[in-house]
Amino acid sequence: MDKLQSTIHRLRPLDREAMRQARARQDSLTKPQGSLGLLEELSVKMAGIQGTAQPRIRDKVIVTMAGDHGVAAEGVSLFPQEVTAQMVYNFLRGGAGINVLARHVGARVVVVDMGVATDLEPHPGLLVKKVAYGTKNMAQGPAMTREEAIQAIEAGIEIVESELGRGMDIVGTGDMGIGNTTPSSAIVAALTGAPVADVTGRGTGIGDEQWAHKVETIERALAINRPDPADALDVLAKVGGLEIGGIAGVILGAAAHRLPVVIDGFISGAGALIAAGLAPQVKDYLIAAHLSVERGHRLVLERLGLTPLLNLNMRLGEGTGAALGISLVEAAVKILNEMATFAEAGVSEAVES
Amino acid sequence: MDKLQSTIHRLRPLDREAMRQARARQDSLTKPQGSLGLLEELSVKMAGIQGTAQPRIRDKVIVTMAGDHGVAAEGVSLFPQEVTAQMVYNFLRGGAGINVLARHVGARVVVVDMGVATDLEPHPGLLVKKVAYGTKNMAQGPAMTREEAIQAIEAGIEIVESELGRGMDIVGTGDMGIGNTTPSSAIVAALTGAPVADVTGRGTGIGDEQWAHKVETIERALAINRPDPADALDVLAKVGGLEIGGIAGVILGAAAHRLPVVIDGFISGAGALIAAGLAPQVKDYLIAAHLSVERGHRLVLERLGLTPLLNLNMRLGEGTGAALGISLVEAAVKILNEMATFAEAGVSEAVES
Repeated sequence: MDKLQSTIHRLRPLDREAMRQARARQDSLTKPQGSLGLLEELSVKMAGIQGTAQPRIRDKVIVTMAGDHGVAAEGVSLFPQEVTAQMVYNFLRGGAGINVLARHVGARVVVVDMGVATDLEPHPGLLVKKVAYGTKNMAQGPAMTREEAIQAIEAGIEIVESELGRGMDIVGTGDMGIGNTTPSSAIVAALTGAPVADVTGRGTGIGDEQWAHKVETIERALAINRPDPADALDVLAKVGGLEIGGIAGVILGAAAHRLPVVIDGFISGAGALIAAGLAPQVKDYLIAAHLSVERGHRLVLERLGLTPLLNLNMRLGEGTGAALGISLVEAAVKILNEMATFAEAGVSEAVES
Repeated sequence: MDKLQSTIHRLRPLDREAMRQARARQDSLTKPQGSLGLLEELSVKMAGIQGTAQPRIRDKVIVTMAGDHGVAAEGVSLFPQEVTAQMVYNFLRGGAGINVLARHVGARVVVVDMGVATDLEPHPGLLVKKVAYGTKNMAQGPAMTREEAIQAIEAGIEIVESELGRGMDIVGTGDMGIGNTTPSSAIVAALTGAPVADVTGRGTGIGDEQWAHKVETIERALAINRPDPADALDVLAKVGGLEIGGIAGVILGAAAHRLPVVIDGFISGAGALIAAGLAPQVKDYLIAAHLSVERGHRLVLERLGLTPLLNLNMRLGEGTGAALGISLVEAAVKILNEMATFAEAGVSEAVES
């Protein structure tokens, strides 16, 4: 709890002067003012986050957190629980979607066992922060204890602190956990008050009947656990997930160190809602990579005050959307730093504007 | 005209068998089926375009075509005409938006003088295909002759043919020309029948009064010239631009050589409408990078049957949107080629689907 509290105390507002300078530079570059749209806005936000009018991105990192879910026993996914561990091995061998897209954008992937249900074989690329062998079945009682929820968040903070030493200028969040859209929907319903059916999607691709069962399972979990919407730790503990807690920790830790966080899809969004529930200031440090297909993601982004950069009908998770988003943030920063000004290029400025 | 006709005769439909194989491979990769959304669809389209179930992208090229417009004399832009030439020099020195974004995605930029109003200083990076010293003022008569229109298109085809020898697996289109949203709107209005005001935007950022004048200028050009909507060459000649003709040529040439063409914003969209008017089959080879802020672009994409990959409130042109789009196409192809299958990774498949 000390680490969580001290991290929250480190949070600072964006640097408004750096943002003003970055905006002024954007307006001096050889293009009609505003013509690069969201790229310009992103570059200004990056200046505010990093606290410099010349933000830089060298090292890009995607943290992919894995955990299992007791609620998977209720039959809420198309895939068996063993796939969580199998996919972790796939990440470590470089064959998953996140590996391909991270390589494409030049990011390294940090794979974390936050709570996979089995012991994984040791691997130099695997960080083990296992809080438990999966959560308990939230349809029957709390997914985890409050202490475990704190431990999961603090593990996420620790990962940021250790990765900083290896170089990290921007971080993307990612998740792997069979069944994890179910706790994510429960978190979103609990924290926003939205009806469960409005924030519950088809996850891996379930049909109508299984979707209705998923909704009913989440409603049951909320009725049994009665999470307190004013207490994000309570929500995480009762209807959350270990990898979702880890994602919340990565977000808090990154923001405390003035790092931009590119959040992925629905599960990362649930983690961001937990982080923002603990410390609303973290929202300033968030960038939404994309709008997921998963129902409820739009509401999550609205509550976080974020506009998604991409809308590609994606719903894989793992950090795949975050990887593509990071590349756009990098493009934005390069525009700010590398484009010539009207004066430098000898280009005539607008007659009026 | 021979080159244009022979290019059109080379056009072939997409390779359906390659697309079927690519779709089957996507469904065998370690992710829920369809969970990478448009990236999956793009990879299948790429298979159809390149005629192989394993499409590849090595060399990425953006062709940025520059030309001046007689109609600029009517006061339709915020910037003076001299900026066209000044920006070409900016491209050649690497200081413009397209240079930054092309470097970011690893594409080379081919800068073409299709019809800048002055003689440009020779530069090893500049291709000179000058058809004329700018178009004539379309508000007073035809922008160019039919022969010049053909010459502009054939110049675009020639550029594809010569760049193929330097390596080109995907091409993005780009434009530079003060005033060129004006002929683009005229082309879109002429070819779609839409009211001029519905397809005329604010270009570099003009105010209400200047916008109304721009609309009136385009209406006058259409009334004086009466372009035949069934004859795309007539439309290009009477109310088009030399760089717009060049873009149409790049599209035709690329499609004839089974190359994917990532079209940029509104001006490239006008060029694509000209190309599709000459040979509707080229639509299969087009990928829309983004939805521009410029009013009318949505209609252009609808007519071309394309879904834009990005919507970042951009309106710069030069190929900047195309550069970002090319990176997404490359990501899509890498997903298809580099991800492990369920069998390869030893991951359990869905229980049902």
